[in-house]
This record gives sequence, structure tokens and C-alpha cells, in this order.
Amino acid sequence: MAKVLCVLYDDPIDGYPKSYARDDLPRIDQYPGGQTLPTPKAVDFQPGTLLGSVSGELGLRKYLEANGHTLVVTSDKDGPNSAFERELVDADVVISQPFWPAYLTAERIAKAPKLKLALTAGIGSDHVDLQAAIDRGITVAEVTYCNSISVSEHVVMMILGLVRNYIPSYQWVVKGGWNIADCVTRSYDVEGMHVGTVAAGRIGLAVLKRLKPFDVHLHYTDRHRLPDMVEKELGLTWHATPEEMYEVCDVVTLNCPLHPETEHMINDETLKHFKRGAYLVNTARGKLCDRDSIARALESGQLAGYAGDVWFPQPAPADHPWRTMPHHGMTPHISGTSLSAQTRYAAGTREILECFFEQQPIRDEYLIVDGGKLAGTGAHSYSAGNATGGSEEAAKFKRT
Amino acid sequence: MAKVLCVLYDDPIDGYPKSYARDDLPRIDQYPGGQTLPTPKAVDFQPGTLLGSVSGELGLRKYLEANGHTLVVTSDKDGPNSAFERELVDADVVISQPFWPAYLTAERIAKAPKLKLALTAGIGSDHVDLQAAIDRGITVAEVTYCNSISVSEHVVMMILGLVRNYIPSYQWVVKGGWNIADCVTRSYDVEGMHVGTVAAGRIGLAVLKRLKPFDVHLHYTDRHRLPDMVEKELGLTWHATPEEMYEVCDVVTLNCPLHPETEHMINDETLKHFKRGAYLVNTARGKLCDRDSIARALESGQLAGYAGDVWFPQPAPADHPWRTMPHHGMTPHISGTSLSAQTRYAAGTREILECFFEQQPIRDEYLIVDGGKLAGTGAHSYSAGNATGGSEEAAKFKRT
Repeated sequence: MAKVLCVLYDDPIDGYPKSYARDDLPRIDQYPGGQTLPTPKAVDFQPGTLLGSVSGELGLRKYLEANGHTLVVTSDKDGPNSAFERELVDADVVISQPFWPAYLTAERIAKAPKLKLALTAGIGSDHVDLQAAIDRGITVAEVTYCNSISVSEHVVMMILGLVRNYIPSYQWVVKGGWNIADCVTRSYDVEGMHVGTVAAGRIGLAVLKRLKPFDVHLHYTDRHRLPDMVEKELGLTWHATPEEMYEVCDVVTLNCPLHPETEHMINDETLKHFKRGAYLVNTARGKLCDRDSIARALESGQLAGYAGDVWFPQPAPADHPWRTMPHHGMTPHISGTSLSAQTRYAAGTREILECFFEQQPIRDEYLIVDGGKLAGTGAHSYSAGNATGGSEEAAKFKRT
Repeated sequence: MAKVLCVLYDDPIDGYPKSYARDDLPRIDQYPGGQTLPTPKAVDFQPGTLLGSVSGELGLRKYLEANGHTLVVTSDKDGPNSAFERELVDADVVISQPFWPAYLTAERIAKAPKLKLALTAGIGSDHVDLQAAIDRGITVAEVTYCNSISVSEHVVMMILGLVRNYIPSYQWVVKGGWNIADCVTRSYDVEGMHVGTVAAGRIGLAVLKRLKPFDVHLHYTDRHRLPDMVEKELGLTWHATPEEMYEVCDVVTLNCPLHPETEHMINDETLKHFKRGAYLVNTARGKLCDRDSIARALESGQLAGYAGDVWFPQPAPADHPWRTMPHHGMTPHISGTSLSAQTRYAAGTREILECFFEQQPIRDEYLIVDGGKLAGTGAHSYSAGNATGGSEEAAKFKRT
């Protein structure tokens, strides 16, 4: 019988909502390209409710306890005295999320001799030291595609919001003003702009598809070239290097995973390749960017705006410069945890646990590390190594 | 020699910006469908600069004065002691904008015996009493298509913003929090939702096209049915009445002109046809909606969100309920006056003035009223009558 340690984000400060904004979720039959949605044998939750928080427990308690397992759920994840570090010592399975990541550093893995499965209820396993997981034979799996479309919607929303100057204009309404000129001296149309994505995987390609009818010029850079038919259909220009792409783009969006090769890929040097007044949207991982370089580029006007919902570390401390830099449109890490996405990643988590406990193979597309090497999606998208350095700063955050 | 009276919005409170966020505008060759962009013989302004405010003067002064005409520019438009009412008595041409409308009521038209042309530097001439213009033989013209794509981008941005709960989530960042659950209990994906537009003219159709790759179900209602080929390509469902459409939609967007038949079309009675938790986006005209009905529907949860950037009157007084109602994502009227749009409507205004002074025909698509009747675009989209009632409330606004 196993101990499952699940780290989830805190509940709403006013408590679990009694009623939701909406009564149901739209039905989605499959992901683009044909991958099926998660296929657990059953679920014990109501779709469209809060599942990713501590009280939601990903809807797992009934299933796990009925099978004799132990479920421990906590949001206390940072620092040596956290519940996470205390409970880790005899955990067989750790479940965590990118939004509220329980950083599984090499030091923590060394303290968890029984750990066999690190499961991400979402997408992106950079909060795990993959090299340490490889060395220890721990399986790392995530719910591939569960929130890719959610994130792609967030990207398009943020591009439009920055270019059109949405949030500052909203603030004039709330302040009681009608200062049109103050709003529009930074407001442009997206139409006709050159928009490029770093990586055109599930999210990047979904962004490109969504932007196509905006009559923009679309660019991408990726180590895997898209099929010729897709390039033609979307009118894509492929670039061999990110720098070559930055030079021609009005808007750049990052949609690649974080691993040692992509860490801090946006820095003072690479920002020099951007056009003055470019917009940068990053819903991939905060550590793709050097935080101070971003703030400096906004101050100088080299970037006209920056938006995204990924930070490093997470939660971001109250003094993180991205909270206060000019012309930003940041959210806390929520793009992949809409109520729609929660329903899918909770079902996917259940599917992976069922496979794990019943000794059935986990879907290849869910695997990042397996059998002591990068596997499945991991072999396609990641490099072995570690990108968790500095995560101890997350302990600085204090809930307000 | 003519007197041209031009009512424009105020300049930025910190003065005209010394440098803009960006150095240039993308080049747009033509509008969708092939209509050409404005074709004045020349322009005297720099594209991408502030032209729609008092100091911008739509770039008209040099041209008008070189031809012996007088140009008077003011933002003081409301009340009997306004510069607008004083200057109106001997004006030949009035230029105004939907964002900062100089309401041309029947009473004001009666005080302007020389008035021959009421020109909208933008789209939408409901701030003119069209019946009075018809009766007096005044030509009403606007710069058709100049900002239709701008507005369609705003609509898509606002739909995504409401459904994904963007602005409240941004506010948690600024407050120093990381309250994911508080953000996402009202955050959904657009994917799979049913989205419908009231009217599928230039803006409505552009919205539908832009939403197509979001894998939503698209609906429309319009007195003019779209070509069969367009319906098939976008997978549109046409509805004979708005109410029939409201009943099946998760998101409704209004993209029709304001005239006596559409005034207050969204009210307590018609809101009963909406699904609980629907989102409503209105960038068309504020008076399409009963303002108190909207606020009540947000309070009760019948609507999950309301966004738009049109109000009645404009500017909206500080106590307008839409500034403070819950779950709104309003902007002041800016969607059609991005710097990109300003460049086009300034050029179109110049084109119309050149035609008027040189006694050449104004493009048919620019005409709303001509020769004592609805004409051109006016005949297609408007009904004769008056929708300016209550505009005197605009005088309540005080700049902060």
C-alpha cells in the first residue's frame, strides 16, 4: 500500500465557492490531432469545480483510500520545515503542479528513498531535477495536452491585451476618468504585425493557428520543423535561430519547455536582437527569462510590454520585480488551471495512478523520465539535467 | 470659404508624448473584401502619432487653412455654454467622433443654419439625429471600415479576458498575492463554447473569423443573411431572432448599429433568454443595453461578465454604474481609436473633406444620409430616426 503525497495550491481566501459562475463545461471530444482526453476508469468529482486546490484534492481521496493507499494533501511546500519535506521521507508518489510547484531537487530526492513516481498534475516537469530522477530510476510523468489549449488562449489574450493597452485603459474606467488619449498613446492594432513563437509544439502551434485570421505575419523557430503542409497553410516563416526571428518580430511568444539549454535564453544580450517596442509574452516558464533584464528592457522602452503567467520561483515573493515593472500584464500562474483544465488534469492524474498501481504501462505521451532515461514526451522536448537551482527563494513568499 | 468645427478628445494629462511605444505601423494594403483604404491626395501627419485628440487636429489644419477655410478645434462639447454650441451657429462642417461624441440633436441642428456636412471621424453616426439631418438636407458621412478590424480585435480580447478572468488575476499580482484559487474559480476556457454575434457586418464577421480556430461553435443573427459559402466555411448557425440565439450561447457579442429599433435591445426581459453565466461583450454602442439591467444581471449571476467600451452618454459620468458593477472588463471608448485606427480615420476624414470642397462625390460606402434620405451604408445599416435622447447627461462628466 502506497503513500501519495499531493502538493496543491491554497483554497480561496473566502472559502470554497458555494456556486460557480457557470453551471457546466463545454464538452470536448478530443485534442487537436486526435489524442484522446484522459481515460480513467472512473472519476469521483464534478467537472467544472475546484479540483486543483487543497480542498479539491484532485478528486483522488475516495479512489486511493478504497484501494488501501494513504493520501496526504498540503500546500506547505517550501523550506526545510515544510509539511512537504516532512512527509516526503516515506512517500511512494509525489503529485505536484507547475502553478504551485513542490520543487523536487536532488537534495529532496535523496531524502525520499521510497519515491518511485513524480507526477505533474499539469504540464511541465522542470520543478523536478530530471537528472536526479534519471539517476534514481524515478518515473516522471505529466498530463500531456491537458491544458495546452488553455495556455494558447491565454497567450492570444495577452498579446491582444498588451498591444491594445487593455489593462491601463480599464483602470481609467475604475478611476472615474475618460482619458482616451492617455489610453491610446500606447494602443495599436495587432493586424499586420509580425508575430513569432519560440517552439511550435502543442501550445505554440495552437497559438499560431489562433492568430492566423488576425492577418498577421507568422514566424516560428524550433529544432523540430513543422510539416511543409502546416507551414504553407498558416503561411509560416521558419527561422534557424531565435535571434534571427527576434529581429523581424513585433511580438514574440515563448512556448518551449525549461531545461538547462533554455534557461535564461532571454537576457540583456538576446534582448538586443528585438525590435524597439516589441512585445514579449511568456506563459512557458519564468526562468526562460532573466528577470532583471526584462524589467530593464521595459524601463528603457526596448520592450513595449511583457505579459505571461510564469515566474521563478513560484510563488513569486512580494518584491519580485515583475509585480511592479512598467507595462506588464502578468497573472499568477493560472493559464493552465482554468476550471476546464482542472477537470482534464484531475482525470489524467487518476489515469496515471491507475496505470501505476495496476502495473499497466503509462501512456507514452505522458512520460518524461522512465527506466532511467528521458522517455516519451520527455525525449522529444527536454534535455537531461536540472533547472531547479534557486528554487529555495520560493520560501520568501508570505500569503497576504 | 467654410468654417470647419472639429470636436476631439482631450490630450494626455501629462502632455503629448515625446516618443511612442513603437517606431512605425504595420503596412495594411486593403480592407478584407477589397475596399481600399482612404485615398486623400495627401496627408500632413506622421502615421502612428496621436491625431484624434485636440492637439492632433486630425492633421487637417495645414490643408484647410491653405485652402482658405477656418478650422476650430475643441473638446468642450456638452451643455448650452460649451464651445461647441457657441461655434456651431456659423459652422459649415462639423467633425466629431464616437469616442467623444458631439451630440448633434435636432435642437442643435436648428441652431446651425449653415451646416451642410456632419462628418464622423470613425464609424457610427448615432450621435447625430439622423431624422433631423434628413429633414434639413445635411449630408452625414463616416469613414466606413477605418476601425472595424480594430474593434473586432477588441471584442476577441474582451471575450478571452472575461472567460479566463484576466483582470482580477492581474490584480492579485499587483497586490502581492499568489491566490490561484481566488483567480480560477471564475476562469474557464473558451474552447467548445457557443459564441454568437448580433449582426455579422464588417465587425461581426471579422469577430467570427477570428474566433473560428478557437474551436468554438459560432452563431449569428442578422437581418441580412451571409452568403452560404461563408456560413459553411465558418460553420455558422443563423438565428432568425436574437432571443433564439441568446438561449444557446455562452458568449454573446453585439456588433450592430444603434438606431431606434436597436435602442435598449438588451433589457430585463431579453436577458431572461440568456443562459445563466453567459458573457456579454458590447463594443457597438452603450445604448443598445439598458444600463441598470446589465448591472442587475451581473449582481444576480445571470451574466458572468460584461465587457465593452461603449457607454451612454459619453463621457460616462463618474457615477455610471458600469464603472463599479461586478465582473466587468470595460474600457472607455478606445477600441476604434488605436494609433493604427487614427491614421486611417484621419486620412479618411481628409478624403471626405477633399470631395466635399471639390464638389466630387463622396464614396458611397462612406455615406449615411445624403440628399434628404438614408444613403450608401446608411441605407443598409440604419433606420431613419433619432437615438440621441438623454445625451445631455454627458455634461455631468468632470475630468479628473
